[in-house]
Amino acid sequence: MTRTAVSGHKMTTMKALVFHGPNQLALENRPKPKLVEATDAVIRITTTSICGTDLHILKGDVPTVTDGRILGHEGVGIVETIGTHVMDFHKGDKVLISLITSCGRCSFCKKGMQSHCLHGGWLLGNSIDGTQAEYVRIPFADTGLYRLPADIDDEAVVMLSCNLPTAMECGTLCGQVKPGDSVAIVGAGPVGLAVLLTTRLYSPAEIIMIDLDDNRLEVARSFGATKVVNSSDGKAVEQVMALTQGNGVDVAIEAVGISATFDICQAIISPGGRIANVGVHGKPVALHLERLWAANITLTTRLVDAGSTPMLLKMIQAGHLDAKKLVSHRFNLSEIIKAYAVFENAAAEQAIKIVIKN
Amino acid sequence: MTRTAVSGHKMTTMKALVFHGPNQLALENRPKPKLVEATDAVIRITTTSICGTDLHILKGDVPTVTDGRILGHEGVGIVETIGTHVMDFHKGDKVLISLITSCGRCSFCKKGMQSHCLHGGWLLGNSIDGTQAEYVRIPFADTGLYRLPADIDDEAVVMLSCNLPTAMECGTLCGQVKPGDSVAIVGAGPVGLAVLLTTRLYSPAEIIMIDLDDNRLEVARSFGATKVVNSSDGKAVEQVMALTQGNGVDVAIEAVGISATFDICQAIISPGGRIANVGVHGKPVALHLERLWAANITLTTRLVDAGSTPMLLKMIQAGHLDAKKLVSHRFNLSEIIKAYAVFENAAAEQAIKIVIKN
Amino acid sequence: MTRTAVSGHKMTTMKALVFHGPNQLALENRPKPKLVEATDAVIRITTTSICGTDLHILKGDVPTVTDGRILGHEGVGIVETIGTHVMDFHKGDKVLISLITSCGRCSFCKKGMQSHCLHGGWLLGNSIDGTQAEYVRIPFADTGLYRLPADIDDEAVVMLSCNLPTAMECGTLCGQVKPGDSVAIVGAGPVGLAVLLTTRLYSPAEIIMIDLDDNRLEVARSFGATKVVNSSDGKAVEQVMALTQGNGVDVAIEAVGISATFDICQAIISPGGRIANVGVHGKPVALHLERLWAANITLTTRLVDAGSTPMLLKMIQAGHLDAKKLVSHRFNLSEIIKAYAVFENAAAEQAIKIVIKN
Amino acid sequence: MTRTAVSGHKMTTMKALVFHGPNQLALENRPKPKLVEATDAVIRITTTSICGTDLHILKGDVPTVTDGRILGHEGVGIVETIGTHVMDFHKGDKVLISLITSCGRCSFCKKGMQSHCLHGGWLLGNSIDGTQAEYVRIPFADTGLYRLPADIDDEAVVMLSCNLPTAMECGTLCGQVKPGDSVAIVGAGPVGLAVLLTTRLYSPAEIIMIDLDDNRLEVARSFGATKVVNSSDGKAVEQVMALTQGNGVDVAIEAVGISATFDICQAIISPGGRIANVGVHGKPVALHLERLWAANITLTTRLVDAGSTPMLLKMIQAGHLDAKKLVSHRFNLSEIIKAYAVFENAAAEQAIKIVIKN
Repeated sequence: MTRTAVSGHKMTTMKALVFHGPNQLALENRPKPKLVEATDAVIRITTTSICGTDLHILKGDVPTVTDGRILGHEGVGIVETIGTHVMDFHKGDKVLISLITSCGRCSFCKKGMQSHCLHGGWLLGNSIDGTQAEYVRIPFADTGLYRLPADIDDEAVVMLSCNLPTAMECGTLCGQVKPGDSVAIVGAGPVGLAVLLTTRLYSPAEIIMIDLDDNRLEVARSFGATKVVNSSDGKAVEQVMALTQGNGVDVAIEAVGISATFDICQAIISPGGRIANVGVHGKPVALHLERLWAANITLTTRLVDAGSTPMLLKMIQAGHLDAKKLVSHRFNLSEIIKAYAVFENAAAEQAIKIVIKN
Repeated sequence: MTRTAVSGHKMTTMKALVFHGPNQLALENRPKPKLVEATDAVIRITTTSICGTDLHILKGDVPTVTDGRILGHEGVGIVETIGTHVMDFHKGDKVLISLITSCGRCSFCKKGMQSHCLHGGWLLGNSIDGTQAEYVRIPFADTGLYRLPADIDDEAVVMLSCNLPTAMECGTLCGQVKPGDSVAIVGAGPVGLAVLLTTRLYSPAEIIMIDLDDNRLEVARSFGATKVVNSSDGKAVEQVMALTQGNGVDVAIEAVGISATFDICQAIISPGGRIANVGVHGKPVALHLERLWAANITLTTRLVDAGSTPMLLKMIQAGHLDAKKLVSHRFNLSEIIKAYAVFENAAAEQAIKIVIKN
Repeated sequence: MTRTAVSGHKMTTMKALVFHGPNQLALENRPKPKLVEATDAVIRITTTSICGTDLHILKGDVPTVTDGRILGHEGVGIVETIGTHVMDFHKGDKVLISLITSCGRCSFCKKGMQSHCLHGGWLLGNSIDGTQAEYVRIPFADTGLYRLPADIDDEAVVMLSCNLPTAMECGTLCGQVKPGDSVAIVGAGPVGLAVLLTTRLYSPAEIIMIDLDDNRLEVARSFGATKVVNSSDGKAVEQVMALTQGNGVDVAIEAVGISATFDICQAIISPGGRIANVGVHGKPVALHLERLWAANITLTTRLVDAGSTPMLLKMIQAGHLDAKKLVSHRFNLSEIIKAYAVFENAAAEQAIKIVIKN
Repeated sequence: MTRTAVSGHKMTTMKALVFHGPNQLALENRPKPKLVEATDAVIRITTTSICGTDLHILKGDVPTVTDGRILGHEGVGIVETIGTHVMDFHKGDKVLISLITSCGRCSFCKKGMQSHCLHGGWLLGNSIDGTQAEYVRIPFADTGLYRLPADIDDEAVVMLSCNLPTAMECGTLCGQVKPGDSVAIVGAGPVGLAVLLTTRLYSPAEIIMIDLDDNRLEVARSFGATKVVNSSDGKAVEQVMALTQGNGVDVAIEAVGISATFDICQAIISPGGRIANVGVHGKPVALHLERLWAANITLTTRLVDAGSTPMLLKMIQAGHLDAKKLVSHRFNLSEIIKAYAVFENAAAEQAIKIVIKN
């Protein structure tokens, strides 16, 4: 009887990481989420992760995230309950949660731009409660979840919630990487390193990784970068031009989000090249049209649509994409405050992606 | 005997418009050009034109153009002499001169980027003497000339030397205009109006022309613009957003080359849209990545490669492209100084393209 | 009381055209359709049409259509009732019905191939009851209907249920028609003529229409064909080669579905050209790889996905696509048996598309 | 003096493999080739190879090859003499010879379809003398040769004359192979195995190699095929469908050139898939449009344009493409008759590519 009571208690509240304004995080008891729409599912999270964007939120840079929000948009879990109009999933299914919520019927969804879905987009851990909790409610479950084989490694697959599709779509695909290309990636953080992994799927001849931190550059080298450039001396441009016989690169991928790194991309791009912006920017940058107007370049920006997720999942399953090597640290949900601290100090902690286990 | 002497004189000198530093133009006698390389041809010009870029040169904005240079990169004429390795042309052929010189064998030419040909590019009236003269030497004649039927209208075809391929490639093709799109063209000068003509080949649903001058906007309307916006009140953005039910446009084409017009493009582009820069810029612009990083836009820059020239010629011949309506004024070569004055005062003179007849 | 009874009767039965095996059609009273799934809508049909595929069905060529099926996959109407999970439509909305039913969430829908939707595809008037009736049930109403302005012309818009998207996607887009191209369309029936309309949106330089019937060729000419070839003398290939200076065409579009017309396409395609098959074929054809293996051609087949429908609707609304001129005959639903007879005898009756009014 | 005479003799004649009609080959003394056009170069061959097409010629299947022709279109060598208008090469340069001769200025060259160059195409060892000799004359040397570093391995690079660009362009690029795709390659001969190498550059999830010969299938596995199917039991289709959970493959590449292998491709292609024909066909095949008309497939044919050669060379130099492993046998030019015999008996001899050293 006591046991029933306890069990009942467990079923109605859960642990969750809650944002309470800039630099205010708390691990709290919150009501377990319930179905709201018939197309919702509630997922019991088994693995989640912390994204660089979560740090932006923590600093107060993302005004759509308000006090009381449960953070997190990455996760793997088990279907707990489904709405009456969820067609493709059942209680007990192991699933990957996509960061992108999409209705599947609006004009943006119909053209594959789910990032701008009129009824969705990036909602989780932003305008609705997210995945850094024991449970999460997923709207439009049929389009926002992917079924997983029971034996797949959570740690590899959780990289597909946000990190690898972002790298693939905003970096590799927007950059139109082709076999034989020379590619520079500016920023060897978790997204830049994921861009390195997805870019290799297109067999460029050269991948030049640029960062301020030698440790991260060593990781990049171990992930397949053919050249590394430490930009802390302010001479990254000269070094890249020397490494490319003065030609510059075919593709420059910005994976930081500040003016200095965007400038490097503009300076090293060869005529006909592509600059793919992946970084989240807080300020305008100077675009050097006085020089680039005649350079036949293509510059792209993108919020991930997650259309590449099924392909990336297939590649992990086929053994052609070792997503797990992005994981540098593991914590339990009870330690998530500490995990954030480690991630905020990523360079010193040699952190890439931090996985949270429930 | 006198006649022979005069004739001899006529054969060795010619009239040519010569640049002598900022704001210094003179119509002078210059030696008639001779073949230098075996792949050269000398063309007797029958029709040429003045390009907006010539005005930039006149202001001293193009440092590669030095004192003594014959200006002009547009022209139709008759082959006068050919080098021993010109394969496809003969004396007496009527030809169109492309602004782009290309070797046809370098890495850029092989990938269709003749604008950046390692042995060519935009040379005419820039780093070598140009077409605003009685004769011009054309390097790599086989790739730089197009044979014309004897009965074609020079005035229509001379628009293919620079104006229409620039509009097609840097504007319409880079903007990926598709049937049903909404397109805004910022700047209704000769290039913007040419963009309007080439954009219509892809049947957008809406073409919104934006300019400061009501006369030019009326011309745009007569060319097929579905909406016009006079931006002199500083409210172009609000007007375009109202005309598009708040959605913005699928394609924004910048055809001026200044910060204010580039800003309009950034403000009216819808998620997933394309900004095609056609204007020649002298200064950096601010790129609003703090907003656009998540907007899935594609921004392009391009120097024309002239690969679209054969297609555009076919369209003129088939009667599907009325290039001649771009011509607003006609002068003889002897009046070219006056023609420049009219073109410099284009709005008041209601000038679009000015054709020079020899 | 009597009136109530009659009214009740009217509300539960309806007139519908029913297939009873090869060459057996009947206009019958059938129960008015009801919602089955929560994502369904029931539409009161105001306008429908007869498609060439309906004639194939009538001949018994489409085995998925069984005795008792209400035919028709084209229609415009008014929303009568909606299921509890229809989000975007309400009773009284005027709507266009797409021939393609799509779930919006399966792997095919996610990549824009709704024709092969795992839960849909071409179902209407095929494996479920269709639109040649007073009412029809539409599954997945949110993805299968398009809202129409109240004042739009039904006759123009009903061409968007099947005819024009098929022409656009299977013909024009698969054929990659570009400005300046020479295009041959083999077959000037309702689909071939629709291909002509959609192909013109891309401004080819030449559109050569090939058919056995001079009347249809005259219609083609009035729709914008630049050349017409009557193939009844068996010399279509020679004529097309002569019209193209021996080069052949850039794009050949097959809009009949038999070996003879497919052979013409293979014989007139130029190196680098595209053959787009639109016709519904009942037998294999010979592919002349002994000649084409080295010809750099692209051959496509396609069942329409209807992704182009919103764009085509926009083009009709903008006045850039005169779909209504495809309509040659009009009948009331009570006369539909006669309408089929006219359509079966299309050449003699000078019929293109036949519209049925309720 | 005697020595001078001998040397003079050596300079005017050379050993060459000459075709004398079906099944008639002879290694003969022939005059050393001389420059004909100013754009020619004469190359001293250091390494050549035998192509499957040479066996077709030997059987008499290629009517453009006439009695007296020196065979061969693959080669690496040293520039011996250059015409007065060869711009980019000098005596002594180590060069790769492309099988494709191209003028660089005709309409086909300008659109990257050098295979159909109006003044070139596949000429070497076909309509002009080829590379299986001590020397060869190369027309349009500037576009038909690629400079090599002195220390590069001839055996790897000679695979770039024909084999690898054919595989890349006609197979991998035409098949639009993408990361995550399932690809079937029908035929594990030298071209099919080269397709396997170039296809891996795009990281498909599955590469299924189909052949009649277990040895070749083992080679395919060692080259990276993820599955192999021996089709000698006539059940290749069933096996591929089983390996793909009944879905079929995204890309089917035909690398044999007969009806039976083309049929396999048609039977295993999934909706939306691409069939890329690489094989040289001597007869028509049946195209199953009665089934494929609605399958949204794209079928391509192509003669190699060799535009991918610089990229492939870069990939070899960067160590990302191990071309040399295609070489199974090596002979001297004096043994070339024997080398042909081995290649004609390739399966029993376990031959892939046979290299001939001078």
